[in-house]
Amino acid sequence: MAFLRVEHIGIAIKSLEKSNDLFKKLFGKEHYKVEKVEREGVSTSFFQLGETKIELLEATTEESAISKFIDKKGEGVHHIAYEVDDIYAEMKRLENEGFILLSQEPKTGADNKLICFLHPKSTNGVLVELCQERKE
Amino acid sequence: MAFLRVEHIGIAIKSLEKSNDLFKKLFGKEHYKVEKVEREGVSTSFFQLGETKIELLEATTEESAISKFIDKKGEGVHHIAYEVDDIYAEMKRLENEGFILLSQEPKTGADNKLICFLHPKSTNGVLVELCQERKE
Repeated sequence: MAFLRVEHIGIAIKSLEKSNDLFKKLFGKEHYKVEKVEREGVSTSFFQLGETKIELLEATTEESAISKFIDKKGEGVHHIAYEVDDIYAEMKRLENEGFILLSQEPKTGADNKLICFLHPKSTNGVLVELCQERKE
Repeated sequence: MAFLRVEHIGIAIKSLEKSNDLFKKLFGKEHYKVEKVEREGVSTSFFQLGETKIELLEATTEESAISKFIDKKGEGVHHIAYEVDDIYAEMKRLENEGFILLSQEPKTGADNKLICFLHPKSTNGVLVELCQERKE
């Protein structure tokens, strides 16, 4: 049972089109895919750097968490996602350690993952996502 | 000439002692070193997850950038550091692309690295650090 790596870093941005161009200039490479997650009201794009992805997040509805984040804090790092080898066991362990889970069961996220967020007030202001590849 | 990987994620925290304990509970493992960077007024600790480090940053002076960051925004993600294979070439390329470099020459950072920061106003609110292992 372990945290394996930084799977991705989620960055809240206002315009996917503009930021895809900006991050292309920054990284010197293109994003490799775009994905909408209707349920969360976000449109996302992904850049690969080593074993970590940079996920740009644009709100597609005003009720989206990304929309609220940008209203409050502006564009910037929204969350850090760690790949774990057993999300159910980690959720149980972390809850026992006093971290606040934002869902009692893993949810389905972008990129075909099982995910669970931890409340930033229990993690020094950093919104933490646990994720694990979904096994078919 | 390329961005290779996320070398580390810098997180501004108020107390290294408390946060070392918190992140030990989160990751299920200990930090592997502590390092003071007197010139920057910070004390840091490092956790390794896959090819990426999590760097906790505590201010040791009131003039420290970390002290100012916490006063303004509270604890949270302070910067994302990318390893590049040629920091001089990347600094030149990025300046030509319109990014704002915070130093015209690389500086010496924690962990024996050459580093250069990009102003967050040119990178969607994310403070970006370029870094490269110093060759002796």
